[in-house]
Amino acid sequence: MRSIDWQDGHIVAIDQTRLPGELVVMEIHTVTELVDAIQRLAIRGAPALGAAGALGVAMAVREDQERDIAALRAARPTAVNLAWGVDQALARHAEGPGAVLAAALEVLDADAVRNRMLGERGAAWLAERVQGPVVVQTHCNAGALACVEWGTALGVVRSLHERDRLGHVYVDETRPLLQGSRLTSWELTEIGIDHTVIVDSAAATVLARGLADAVVVGADRITANGDVVNKIGTYPLALAAHRANRPFVVAAPESTIDPTISSGLEVEIEIRDGDEVLAIGGLPGTATLNYAFDVTPADLVTAIVTEDRVIQPALGERPA
Amino acid sequence: MRSIDWQDGHIVAIDQTRLPGELVVMEIHTVTELVDAIQRLAIRGAPALGAAGALGVAMAVREDQERDIAALRAARPTAVNLAWGVDQALARHAEGPGAVLAAALEVLDADAVRNRMLGERGAAWLAERVQGPVVVQTHCNAGALACVEWGTALGVVRSLHERDRLGHVYVDETRPLLQGSRLTSWELTEIGIDHTVIVDSAAATVLARGLADAVVVGADRITANGDVVNKIGTYPLALAAHRANRPFVVAAPESTIDPTISSGLEVEIEIRDGDEVLAIGGLPGTATLNYAFDVTPADLVTAIVTEDRVIQPALGERPA
Repeated sequence: MRSIDWQDGHIVAIDQTRLPGELVVMEIHTVTELVDAIQRLAIRGAPALGAAGALGVAMAVREDQERDIAALRAARPTAVNLAWGVDQALARHAEGPGAVLAAALEVLDADAVRNRMLGERGAAWLAERVQGPVVVQTHCNAGALACVEWGTALGVVRSLHERDRLGHVYVDETRPLLQGSRLTSWELTEIGIDHTVIVDSAAATVLARGLADAVVVGADRITANGDVVNKIGTYPLALAAHRANRPFVVAAPESTIDPTISSGLEVEIEIRDGDEVLAIGGLPGTATLNYAFDVTPADLVTAIVTEDRVIQPALGERPA
Repeated sequence: MRSIDWQDGHIVAIDQTRLPGELVVMEIHTVTELVDAIQRLAIRGAPALGAAGALGVAMAVREDQERDIAALRAARPTAVNLAWGVDQALARHAEGPGAVLAAALEVLDADAVRNRMLGERGAAWLAERVQGPVVVQTHCNAGALACVEWGTALGVVRSLHERDRLGHVYVDETRPLLQGSRLTSWELTEIGIDHTVIVDSAAATVLARGLADAVVVGADRITANGDVVNKIGTYPLALAAHRANRPFVVAAPESTIDPTISSGLEVEIEIRDGDEVLAIGGLPGTATLNYAFDVTPADLVTAIVTEDRVIQPALGERPA
C-alpha cells in the first residue's frame, strides 16, 4: 500500500507514531485532523508532506473547509514540500473540486515515479564510484513512509539492492523521535535488507573505521546554493563523511529544491517541544533546545541526486 | 558526599543508574558486587573507576577475595583509570591490608585535589581566550559523579562559575544511557547552574550557530600522541568545534594519560549490549553496533588540561 492515499472521499495514511509496534492506518476526514496528524508526525517526511498538502486541499475544496488551507500550508515550516503540495492542488482551484483532486492524485503518482528515477540514478552513481557491495550509512527515514512509496534515500538503497550491489545499511536511530530505529529499521526488515541500528553519536565512528562506503540521506529543503536542510544530525554526519573521505549523497526530488532561498541559514528551523528530549530519562522542566532540522553547508555535499540530474555542490555546482 | 567512598569496612557509592529519579547509595561488600556495579554503570566515569579499583583491592585484601582482583581490573576495558587504581593499591600489598587501604584512600583524596587543580587551570585557560561569560558545550558526565568529587569537565565549569565567568552550559543527552540528560543535568541543577539539554545530534548546530564558545569534555584514555578516547559522540563534537573554530578542551587527570599506547586506534573500544540502543523504541532483535567510546584524533584537540599542565595536541604537542 501507499503510505498516504485517497480513498472513498477521504485521506488514508499509515500512522508513523505507532510503528514499529503496530501498522495502523488512519482515516482523515477534515483538514484539522490532517494538520494534527502532521504536527504530531503521524504523517512526516518531505515528499509525504507534499502529498498530504495536495490531498488536504482536495479534501478542503470538497468539504467546504477552504478557510483551513492556510493552517495546513503552515503546519510545519521547514520542509518546502508541504507548501509546494498545497500550491500544486490550489493551482487548479478555478476548475472545480474534480480538477483539484486530479492535481493532488497527480502529485502522488509523480512522487512514486520520481522516486524510482532518483533511486536508479543514485544507485548508478554510487555503483560507479564504490568497488563491490556498497555499504550505506543513513539517517532518519527517507523511505516509503516518508514519501508515497519507494523512498528517496531508501529508494537509492532499494535500487542498489535490486542491482545486487547493496552491502549493508547502517541506520542512525535519529533522536529524539527515532525515525531510524523505528521506521527505517521497520521498512528494511519488511523488504528483507540486512541492517544495523546505531545511536546517532556512533555514526562518525562507523565512517572513521571504514565500515560504510557512503552516506545517503533525504532532504527537507535544498537552497539555491546547495545547502541541505534535513533532520537534525545530518550536518555532523556530513562532517564525519568529509573527514573519512566518503561521499555524502542527498537523494531528493526536484520539488525539494527551493530556488527562492539563497542559503540554508535563511531557512526557518522548527524548534519542537522539549518533552521529546526529556521523556526518556531527563529531569522534567529542564530547558531544552529541540531543533528538528539542521543545515549542511554545500561544500560538504558531494552529490544531490534528483529524478532529473546529479548536482555536485562540493565541486561548486549549484542546484538553482 | 563523595560519589564513592569507604565506610565501616565496605564501599559506599551513589547508584548512577537511579538518577535523576532517586538518590540511592549502594553498600558494596564483595568484589563480585563491585564488578557488577561497574559493568551495569552504577559506578562509572574514568576517575571514579580509578577510585573503585583501588577500594576494590582494599576490600579484596581485607575479605580474602584476592582471586577476584583480575576480574575487577578487567571489568571494563577502555578507561585506563580502573586498572591504574587497582595497581595503585596493589603496589602496597606487601605491607598488609592497612597499607593497601591507605593507598586506596590516597587515590580518593588525590582525585579530589587534582580535580580542583585542573578545574582552576581549565577555567583560567578559557577565561583568557573567551571574552565575557563563557558558554560551554559538554557531552556525557564528567562531573562529581564520574569522579570522587568536583569533577573534571564539570570541574572546569564549576571553576568558571566560581569566578563568575560562566555563561551557560549546553548538555548533550548522551545516548544510549543518557549520562548527560540524567546525570550532568542533575548535578548542574543541584549546584544551581543554568543549562539546556539537547539531543546529541543537535550539538553541531549549537556550535555552528555560535551559541557555545567552547567544548569541554572528560576522557577515558589519552594516548601518547594526544588522541582522546571518550564517550561515544565526542569525536563528532570535536569535528563540529573544529568547523566552528571553537576550542575543543579535554579535562582529565594525568592518570588518564596512557604513555604505553601510541595512538587511539590501538585502544580496545568496549561494545555494549544492543538492548541499550533498542529499548526505547526499536525492533527487538535488530542488529546493533553499540560502541561505548570513540577516538578523537589529536589534531582536533585544542587543549588537554590536567592538574599539572596544558597540552595542545592540535599544535603538535604530545602528552607523552
